[in-house]
Amino acid sequence: MYDKSKELNSTIKLVNDKLHFIGTVENNEPISIDYITPLGDELGYTSLELFLLSFSSCIGSALLTFLRRMQKTITHFEIQTQGIRNVEHPTGFKSIYLNICITSPNVSEEDVQKVLVSAEDKYCPVWSMIKGNTIVESAVTITK
Amino acid sequence: MYDKSKELNSTIKLVNDKLHFIGTVENNEPISIDYITPLGDELGYTSLELFLLSFSSCIGSALLTFLRRMQKTITHFEIQTQGIRNVEHPTGFKSIYLNICITSPNVSEEDVQKVLVSAEDKYCPVWSMIKGNTIVESAVTITK
Repeated sequence: MYDKSKELNSTIKLVNDKLHFIGTVENNEPISIDYITPLGDELGYTSLELFLLSFSSCIGSALLTFLRRMQKTITHFEIQTQGIRNVEHPTGFKSIYLNICITSPNVSEEDVQKVLVSAEDKYCPVWSMIKGNTIVESAVTITK
Repeated sequence: MYDKSKELNSTIKLVNDKLHFIGTVENNEPISIDYITPLGDELGYTSLELFLLSFSSCIGSALLTFLRRMQKTITHFEIQTQGIRNVEHPTGFKSIYLNICITSPNVSEEDVQKVLVSAEDKYCPVWSMIKGNTIVESAVTITK
């Protein structure tokens, strides 16, 4: 067993004669990964959709951790993420928009913005890997 | 319906009082996402594991597409990926190692290395987003 705070591992295996992969890490439910037609058959998540889930969950974890340390109560937390691709190759995300929806009696938008700054600077590892290459913008909706 | 060659979307929702999220894109099987203990309960993929699956499937798709255009036959294709995190925050991947395993009667290691160069330069969108921030190394094993 390796220490996930230092090292992480994954495996993908091709399962058809196009671009359908099954991705796994240990005992987690395998993830179906495919590409859009005509190269793929859209039988699963695209690589870039997995990236959006990776990035938004990383930011979500940082937000929740720091807001709770500030003694905030969070009863609902959701992030809708949209990535806009570059038109020319490489067609990675030119920009990513996060719509952060929180239900809380005592979180302010200012609290969230403050934590987002430290997530970008230091506490969101996925964000650190795309620094300088992709623009990230966010909107925050707080319901009392 | 949006055009996935231009724009992609995802949603995560918190489902417990720690860091367990359910991630979804359209009708795909929901993905369980969590963090390591003590902050999380390890009930799913970590954000950085999803990143490894995103990255390796992106490279895998580029490799398969270009090798097939070169009239190569591929009967088995697998990538094992290892990411080594930075010790200090932000603890993103300092380096990523890909172990690319291909069964083919007519693919050479040189073919794969050639396609890897163009994947890095132009055809792997996820790679383009981490350029300058993370070192990527690979090993290729070809079985006839």
